[in-house]
Order: sequence, then structure tokens, then C-alpha cells
Amino acid sequence: MKRGFGSDNHSGISPEILKAIADANTDHALAYGDDEWCARTECLFKEYFGPQAKVYFVFNGTGANVLNIDAMCRSHEAVVCAETAHINVDECGAPQRVVGCRLLTVDTPDGKLTPDLVKTRLHGFGFEHHSQPKAISITQSTELGTLYTLDEIRALADLAHSYNMYLHMDGARLANAAVALACTFKEMTTDLGVDCLSFGGTKNGLLMGESCVILNPALDVDLKYRRKQMTQLCSKMRFMAAQFEAYLTTGLWRRNAEHSNRMAQLLYNEVSTLGVKVMYPVQVNSVFVQLPAEVWHALQKEYFFYDWDEAQNVVRWMCSFDTTEEDIHAFTTALKRILESPRTT
Amino acid sequence: MKRGFGSDNHSGISPEILKAIADANTDHALAYGDDEWCARTECLFKEYFGPQAKVYFVFNGTGANVLNIDAMCRSHEAVVCAETAHINVDECGAPQRVVGCRLLTVDTPDGKLTPDLVKTRLHGFGFEHHSQPKAISITQSTELGTLYTLDEIRALADLAHSYNMYLHMDGARLANAAVALACTFKEMTTDLGVDCLSFGGTKNGLLMGESCVILNPALDVDLKYRRKQMTQLCSKMRFMAAQFEAYLTTGLWRRNAEHSNRMAQLLYNEVSTLGVKVMYPVQVNSVFVQLPAEVWHALQKEYFFYDWDEAQNVVRWMCSFDTTEEDIHAFTTALKRILESPRTT
Amino acid sequence: MKRGFGSDNHSGISPEILKAIADANTDHALAYGDDEWCARTECLFKEYFGPQAKVYFVFNGTGANVLNIDAMCRSHEAVVCAETAHINVDECGAPQRVVGCRLLTVDTPDGKLTPDLVKTRLHGFGFEHHSQPKAISITQSTELGTLYTLDEIRALADLAHSYNMYLHMDGARLANAAVALACTFKEMTTDLGVDCLSFGGTKNGLLMGESCVILNPALDVDLKYRRKQMTQLCSKMRFMAAQFEAYLTTGLWRRNAEHSNRMAQLLYNEVSTLGVKVMYPVQVNSVFVQLPAEVWHALQKEYFFYDWDEAQNVVRWMCSFDTTEEDIHAFTTALKRILESPRTT
Amino acid sequence: MKRGFGSDNHSGISPEILKAIADANTDHALAYGDDEWCARTECLFKEYFGPQAKVYFVFNGTGANVLNIDAMCRSHEAVVCAETAHINVDECGAPQRVVGCRLLTVDTPDGKLTPDLVKTRLHGFGFEHHSQPKAISITQSTELGTLYTLDEIRALADLAHSYNMYLHMDGARLANAAVALACTFKEMTTDLGVDCLSFGGTKNGLLMGESCVILNPALDVDLKYRRKQMTQLCSKMRFMAAQFEAYLTTGLWRRNAEHSNRMAQLLYNEVSTLGVKVMYPVQVNSVFVQLPAEVWHALQKEYFFYDWDEAQNVVRWMCSFDTTEEDIHAFTTALKRILESPRTT
Repeated sequence: MKRGFGSDNHSGISPEILKAIADANTDHALAYGDDEWCARTECLFKEYFGPQAKVYFVFNGTGANVLNIDAMCRSHEAVVCAETAHINVDECGAPQRVVGCRLLTVDTPDGKLTPDLVKTRLHGFGFEHHSQPKAISITQSTELGTLYTLDEIRALADLAHSYNMYLHMDGARLANAAVALACTFKEMTTDLGVDCLSFGGTKNGLLMGESCVILNPALDVDLKYRRKQMTQLCSKMRFMAAQFEAYLTTGLWRRNAEHSNRMAQLLYNEVSTLGVKVMYPVQVNSVFVQLPAEVWHALQKEYFFYDWDEAQNVVRWMCSFDTTEEDIHAFTTALKRILESPRTT
Repeated sequence: MKRGFGSDNHSGISPEILKAIADANTDHALAYGDDEWCARTECLFKEYFGPQAKVYFVFNGTGANVLNIDAMCRSHEAVVCAETAHINVDECGAPQRVVGCRLLTVDTPDGKLTPDLVKTRLHGFGFEHHSQPKAISITQSTELGTLYTLDEIRALADLAHSYNMYLHMDGARLANAAVALACTFKEMTTDLGVDCLSFGGTKNGLLMGESCVILNPALDVDLKYRRKQMTQLCSKMRFMAAQFEAYLTTGLWRRNAEHSNRMAQLLYNEVSTLGVKVMYPVQVNSVFVQLPAEVWHALQKEYFFYDWDEAQNVVRWMCSFDTTEEDIHAFTTALKRILESPRTT
Repeated sequence: MKRGFGSDNHSGISPEILKAIADANTDHALAYGDDEWCARTECLFKEYFGPQAKVYFVFNGTGANVLNIDAMCRSHEAVVCAETAHINVDECGAPQRVVGCRLLTVDTPDGKLTPDLVKTRLHGFGFEHHSQPKAISITQSTELGTLYTLDEIRALADLAHSYNMYLHMDGARLANAAVALACTFKEMTTDLGVDCLSFGGTKNGLLMGESCVILNPALDVDLKYRRKQMTQLCSKMRFMAAQFEAYLTTGLWRRNAEHSNRMAQLLYNEVSTLGVKVMYPVQVNSVFVQLPAEVWHALQKEYFFYDWDEAQNVVRWMCSFDTTEEDIHAFTTALKRILESPRTT
Repeated sequence: MKRGFGSDNHSGISPEILKAIADANTDHALAYGDDEWCARTECLFKEYFGPQAKVYFVFNGTGANVLNIDAMCRSHEAVVCAETAHINVDECGAPQRVVGCRLLTVDTPDGKLTPDLVKTRLHGFGFEHHSQPKAISITQSTELGTLYTLDEIRALADLAHSYNMYLHMDGARLANAAVALACTFKEMTTDLGVDCLSFGGTKNGLLMGESCVILNPALDVDLKYRRKQMTQLCSKMRFMAAQFEAYLTTGLWRRNAEHSNRMAQLLYNEVSTLGVKVMYPVQVNSVFVQLPAEVWHALQKEYFFYDWDEAQNVVRWMCSFDTTEEDIHAFTTALKRILESPRTT
């Protein structure tokens, strides 16, 4: 399939990652994480997130999010999140089934929670008929391609802690956020009081590699059993650790994220000249636009991408680490042609 | 770590598999299974298991087993299995947590259920206080390295169906079984009435690849949602399909399984000459032996392997696709030396 | 505690019900529902709801709601309901824990769903990342004391069925609704296409008696096991059936509901003369009013009642089968006194 | 139905209990446990079980057992119990569904665990593939009508605590045990180190009343939410508390239990003279006998009772608080007649 703008998991594997897997393919290694690659990579996570950080590798983002929620909440407790959060919309109810808890959702203009929005959900404490709010979950960068500033994250962490709650960050695209904010991972998480993190690599060049990173040691209770029981324990774990090791030590995370962010800016610039309405600030690697239905339907005949909100005619275009400038020119040229062609409406 | 006999998931990736991953690493592909590798490989599964077969790729054996149990049973129902079954012993209660059902276990002499053993659990039908038996689960080859004959499997399938129950086969090592029985996968499953199968590749040369194979179409209800919700949906699925495609089309499954089975025979032959008690018939790629505690403790200083039953001083040695004759000679030489050295007891 | 307006479960047991329990206390009876009282009462439910109706007695409203949801949905499916629905707000996440499914909530002005409101949640069918909408749940009378007309119920049933979904009615106060609408239970449920019903008696004079009433036989699958497994099977069931028998055969359900509805009208009339803002139409046995905080705080020193929305200073007053006209005069006299007393604000 | 020997929940309500319910039926009371009857009865439980005891009233024995297991274990942990335990056999998998944990069962000769039997299940600690043993559950008196001595209970409590585990007692028939052992409830529980208790009254004269009694305060965490979420919170709780209050303050628990125990002894004496094989020591209110199939089938035409083990032709006869000497004479006379009649075999 030709390169398009469907999702950053439509791209393949960065060559550095494939090499790391091949390099790790030597002799025997203990399974389930007791190998030298895991040992080294666990140290790397401590370098990146602080010495208290503890990483649990998992298969996918849903696994990372569910394990983090499981670390923060029991079933009678609840997670406050944006209505648009991946944990709410795109996991087919995995938190409800696996953890058994409630999500308390909040409508947001741009995918971002604020303390005021969260507070609308913070009531009923001590009342046994109500699920007890125990965590706030934010996505950085958000599902709408927007970013929390460091101050905004800190404010949510402070709010959470003032209620004896935790702050979780879904960082499926954390690298894109770090590059955009010109900060380290630690400055965006540990230093602000984030308690646990889903840190993903699959959308930024890994074959398959996601992780649950516990930043608040109070949450690190029995998680090895919890991960296993929820079916998220990998046997040949060295190959997952080796990917993360290459990702973090070669600067690949930064190079790939810088590139996909830059491609999204280029895409934004080009479509802006076409008079297309862009829905949200383009801060990382996605562009959300509103188009007449017949336009995006026509464009989808040439390129695969997702409608985001069919009722509003909003579609999403994602850039990947392998998106090229030529891809963008070809895509916007096609869009221009469709926009300029006579239409029925 | 030097090659040893700890587990067949201590070995790495067969070169054919690594090449298949690299070959699939081209351009973009839809995520979550809507790609050409998945399409081709789904057809391959139909060739191997019959046209009605439907495959759901999952991350690990626990995922495959739990998805199959979920397909067969609701939470008030129960699965009859051997006390030694992986689903009972080695999944930290994943079936209980994710499906919510009971396992009705049976003691066996050799890891194998029989109709008579199963029947001891088939009562209480219609009685609402009792979990309702709905499935039988067998492992082929078993956790003790033994094999069901085709007739034995058929008898269990017939028993299951006569009670309106299903038969599940945990085939984490199905290739080893097929080679040992000199039959096709289909002759060992579909043709005998097996309703669903966990078909694994990770223990036989894949990087990571397991599958839930539905052989009875009546069980194929809503499984795409169930897989997603239990956190077992892979995004870059092409790389999992590509592994299975190479596994099945190049004969790799057979070559690797033949080799590890043959190595186990060699190991069996060598340790037999040392007067060591072998616990079960060596039919596939494992050898279980009973040794004085100080002997296996001493041997563990040189080689990693698992004690299987510490109380009985039984240990397990597994051969892999990459085990060499030299490995076995070196291992048995070490064992011989320890056996002949003066000991305290 | 003196009679007040806290909840219709603050009142006790109607004398007819206590007598029915005493009358049933003779000799032995089979447990778990196999007794003559259950047999007779199951027939009564068929008289009241149609010959296809099947009743499962349960302990409480949460049990009835969860069993009904369990009958309609598997964990990957979802129930559309009002944000204010009891199943969403007041069951501490029981549907999520016990069934594992999602609730898709909709904001409403008056606690009532409409087809247009429901349709905002009906998307993502066939998309495995999204919980699949499978049921609509409405409360009759609603948690805000409002009523669906028969036409409104039929429209929601039709909508549900056009999407291959089910319609559930939470009828914890069904008797109050039937009296207010001057219709039979069957005209309000079965005849309109309601698929299953939580039919309660505890809030209308029973000691303890709730029920899951399956009106669509397609939903009556394995529910006896499901009820038992979710801990809702009563042993001395004759005493629950005997309560419902007396409730239905003596006209008690109607007398009690007529009375509590009438008392609420009286209360409404009296507070209206005081210039108090009433939030919703008073259609059954509750009155929601908005009062200055210091007023309802002062009134709570004399009478127990719940604040409903502390942020908006809305409180709820419920009338019961045993509320007297004197109770209402005393209560409104106290309110009048407080309203007229000098206040700080 | 004439009085028989089917179960001690086939009998009705003791007059003292019915009176207590009627006496509590006055004016209004707060729901969900915030009433004066609950307050007084909670104090009574502290008198009976020690000042640290905390009681949670629930609807049935399954609710009590599941709430206790939920207090002791998370889903990755396990409860060691007898194969014959009610939690294993007769709750349709409620612990698995609601808590998600495993039960590790042990075969016993008489329904009683011993430290040696339990120890066969205490392994795999720290190994993430295995459910972690966290609790021992015993039933006093057992499902087979046998009793643990105080020393035996203490030994199991000590064993549990030495492994950082808890000891749960299923006391659905605790009163019968206390009478038989001539000890107080506290001497049989708190004083021996029992951590939590299911204390039932329904089988000994209550209409409906069971309780989860937390004896080890470390287990009293969030249980009010857990009870609500698992659907076991009663609204008109005063009527449940009032039953327990009468049960404990009037000596009813003792009178009823003494009587049913004595009736079982009488039944035992009479059937012994008939040469019938009694399976277990008759220590409380049940008698298990082995009879030719045609004998118990014939007897079941006159009296309802359960076959306990159809394969072994073992049946169970239970005596209740309302069993009379005449009932026993009539029953044994019928048995004698059948035994002496000519039979086919």
C-alpha cells in the first residue's frame, strides 16, 4: 500500500529497530524479562524517568493503559478523563472489563482536561453509591494532536494529589510531545508529579513495543502478577527490550518524532493555502480538517485515512516517521484537484 | 547466555522468520489485520485447517487460550482440564479474571485426559448452584511431553459433543506433535472434531506469534471485539502474519519441530545410559527426569533449567530448534561428571 | 425517626405485606424458587405482563438492573442511558464490574432519553475498537420524577429494535408511573416493545422485593445461572414471592402509589404558594426544588432529605406510601418559617 | 409441603424473628444501614466477636463469602479450600466471576482441611505465572456435617499467618458448631486468629440474614463500596439488623441450633438401628448415609431430600429448628418399611 496519512501505525519498522532485533538474536536468553537486554533497558528507563521509575513492557497501548489503570484503581474507583480519550473511546471497554472500574468523562474543546473540568467530576467521596474518583488520565500529545504545557500538567498533578488521587499519562506519542515542547521525558512526567505513564514506541518506529512506566513507587504493587493475569506478559522479552534500547540510545525516538512533526507542519502549511479549515492547533504529527463530504470521500478513493467525526465532516491525517515531503506534495496536489473539480452540491 | 535446556522459548528467532519480518517492512499497511499479509495468511490457515477455519492472531499463548475459552464459555460455565494444564497452572488465573469461569481439574498420570476422567466432572447439569461444564481443554503435546493419539482426541471430541460441549486444544507445541504423529494439523484437529485451537509458533522459532483458530464456525461470534477488549489486538499485524506465512510456507514449522524432537530423543538416549529415571515417554521435545536434589542443584550451576516438582525432585529439560548435538553431549557429560562425583548423601 | 421526605425506602412495610410473610410461614418449602408461592406469583407476572413474561426475583434494584443488563449485553457491548440514570450514577459501577460493559451516557434536560439523544451514541457499529451499542435503558418514572408517555417509550423501543438493540426499563417506581399514566403495567412495557424490566416493590411498601422481568423471550438465556453467579439468588424465596403476590392481588401496588403520588402533588401545591422554584414537573412521588443553601441547611436540621445537586442548590423530597397530609403541613410550615426568618445573605 | 429433611433453609421463620421485624416496622428509618437497629446490632457483633469486629450485612451466604474473599484477595491471588467447600461447589463460580481469583482445592476425607493438606498448595510464591496463595477458607461446621476443634482452627490460622495469608471461616451454620463445641462464637473465631467470617442466620430461623464479619481490621478496606458494587447492599437494612438483634439477644441462635443438632442425633440413632451406613460423624444437624439407590429413590417419593453423591449413593438429611421428634419417627418408619420391602436387586 502506498504511504498515506491513515495512522502512524501504518508505517513499518525503523531500520535501527530491525537491526536491534537481529543483534539480539543470539544464543539463548531467559524468558519473561530475566535477560540482559531487559536489565540494561530497565536501567535506561531509570536514566530517562528518574531512579524510582519501574518499567513493565507490554504488547500494546491498550495493555499499557489497562495495566496503569489497574495499578491506580480498584473496581469501585473511577478515572476522570476526556470524552475523547483513547481509554474511553478506542479500547472497546477494556478498562471496564479487565479492571471493572468506571471512567468519568468530561467534554473538552480540544482533548485537554483542565482542573476546572476535572473538578466537575470530583464529588461523592465517601458515598458508597458512587464510584470513587481515584485517578486522572491525560493523553500527551492528545488524541486531537494538541499538547499540554508543563504547567498544565503540573496543575493536574497537583489537583490529583490534593484529592489523594493519581495522575496517569497516556504517552502513546510521548516522543512527539517531547520534541514539540523541547523538553525531556522526565521534565514532562516525573518532575511534574505524573504517577504513571503509558510510554509507547510502536507509533514511532518500533515493530511492537509499549510499556507501563510506574513513576510513583507506591503504585508498584503486585504488577508483575497483574500483567501476567491480564495476558500481557511476553515470553521472548529480550526482543522488546532490545527495541527500546535502540530507540532510546540511538536518538531514534527524537529523530523520528521530529520528522513526523515537521511533516505535519508542512501538511498544515500546504492545506492552509487551500482554504481548508483546520480544527485544532497542529502541535505534533496530526492534522484535523473539516471538508465537504464529497471532497473527503473522493480523496479517500486515492488515500486511506479515517473520518474522525462523520457528523461534522472532520477527518484526521497522521504523519509518520517515514512520511516524505513528496508524499505530502502528492497528497495536497490530489486534494487541490478534488477541491477545484466541479461538485454536485 | 549459552544454549541450554530451560525452555523452548529461551531460543531466539529462526533466520527465515527474521527475513520474513524484514521483507514485510515496506511502505505502509493498514493496521489491526486489514493488510495483505494477514489476508494471505488467513487463507493459509484455511488450507491447513480446512475452509471453515478462522484465525485470530494474538500476542501470546495465554491470550490464545483465554480467547478460545471466551469463545466457548460464559462465566457461569466451566472448562474440564488436566490439573497440569497450562491454563490451570501457569496463567496466574487469567481465565478466571478475564472470562470469569471455573476450571474443573482432573488428576492424570501423564497430563492426558481420558473420557473416563472427564466424566467424573460431568454432573450438575441444569443445577443453578453448579458451574455448567461447557468445554474440555487438552494440550497437544501435553505439558509433560506426552501425546494424545488421534483416536484419543476423537474420543474426547465425541464425548464433548454428546454433552453439547466443545473441545479446545492448546497447541503451543502443535508442530512437535504433528511431526511425532506423522500427521497434518488438520488430521489432528478439524478432522477429529476439535472446535478451537491455540496454535503457537513462538516456541518453535517465531519472534512472537500465537493464534486462536476457530474450527467450529458456531464459536466465531463477536471474537474481534472480544480480542480487542481483552487487550490482545496487535496494531502492526502484518509482522505477525508475515511470520506465520513464512512458518507455514517454507516448511519451517516441520524442520524446527523435527529437530527439537530428535534432540530430545538423543538427550533421552544419553541420560538413559546414565541410569537416570525418566518420568514420562519422550514423545516430543522434552525430557522429565527424577534426580537426587544435590545432583540437579549442581547441574543448575552450569545450566539453567526448571525444577518441575521440587517435592519429587523432578526436573524438566526442553530442546529447541537451535539445540545442537554438541549441546547435548556437553550437557550429559556434565551430568555424568556430577553423578559420578562423591556426594554428601 | 420521624417520617420525612428523604426517600421512599425510608418508610417501612405495608401491613398487607407483613401479613403475607406471616401467612407464608408455615411448614417447609423448597428453597431457591421451587415453591408454591413462587409458582403462583410467576403466573401472576404472566397475567400482568403477558404470557411470555418470565420473572427472576432478586434482592435489590441494583441486582435487577445488573441481571437485565447481563441478559442484554456481553462485555464488549454498551448500554445507552441518561447521565442521571441510576445504573450510571448510583450503583458504584456495578454494571462495569459484574457485566464488564460500558454505559454510553447522554445529557438530558429532564432525565428522559429521546430517539434523537440516543442516536448521538449510535455509531461505530462493526468497528472493533468501539464498544458496540446493544441496549437502551430508561427509567420509568425517572430519577427526576418525570414520566415517559407511552408514545415516547414506543419510539425508543422502535429505535432500539431498528438497530438490533434492546430496550430495558428500570421500573423501581413502576407503580407510581402506572398510576400517573392511568395504564396497566403491560400497556407501559410489553405492549410497547420493552424487552426487559426491573420491577421493584421495595420503594412502595415491600420489605424487600425486586425482580428482573424478561419480556422478550430471546433474552431468557441461562439467567438462572447468571443470577446465582452474581450472588442474587435468595434461598427462602417463598417470602419474596409472597410479598409480590400480596402486592399484586390486593391492589396494594395501586393504593400505595396513588397515595404517594397524591402526597407529592399536595407538597408541590403547598411549596408553590411559598414561591419556591420547582425544577421538574411533579408527575409521581417526588418534588425537586431549588432553595438558598442556608434554607435547605436549616430545614435539614429538622428533616432528613438529600441534596441532589449541591452546586445548584437543588434538593429532592420524596413522598412514601405512609406519608400523611399532616406530615406535609408540618414540613411546609417549617419551610415557611425558615424562609421568612431573617437570613445572612 | 410437609416438614422433611431436605435442607435447613426449607424451614421458615422463627416466631421471635417475625416479631422483631414487625416491631421494627415503625415510622421512618434511614436506608442502607444508617439506622438505630444497625447501630445497636453492630455493637452486639462487637460483644460477640470482640471490639475490633466490623459487620457488613448482606443478603445471602454467597454474598458473604464473596465479600470476604474480596476483602482478602485480589484477582491474581488464590484461596485454598476443601474440594467440597460451598465456595467451590455451590456458588456457580461466583468467586471467579466477582473477584476473579482462583480457588486451590484439596481433597479431604471429611470436608476438613489440615495444615498438611493446605501445605500441598503453598508453593509458587513470587512466581508470576502462578496465582499467589493468599487465604485459607474453612467451613464450620463443614458441608459434611463435621467440626473443626478449636485447636485445629488455631493451627490453620497459625499456618495462614506464617505465610502472610488470611483465614476465612464460612459460618453459615456457626451456631450449630458453637453449640456442639460448647464454646462462644469468639472463642471459635477471633480468639483463634480467624481473620474474617461469613456468619449466617438464614439456616437457623431468620427470614433472611447473612453477614460478613471482619475480625482482622487490616481487611476492612473499602468494603462498603465493594459490597455495594457487587450488588449486596440492602436498602431497608433495619429489618435485617432487627433479625440479628433478636437472634443474638434472645438466645434464639442457641435454642434453634441445640434443637436441630439434637434432632440429628435422634435421627442418627434411629437409622443406626436400621443398619444403615452413616458416612461421617454426626456432629451438628446433618446425617449423611449410604443407601441402595432403589431405597432412597423410594424414600424420595415420600420426602424431599438431596442426593449428595449419586455415584456413591450417598444422600444428605438435614434437621432444622422446627424438626420434631414425630417428624423423625415418621421418616425412619418410612425408611424401615422401604428397607424391609422386597426389592428387585
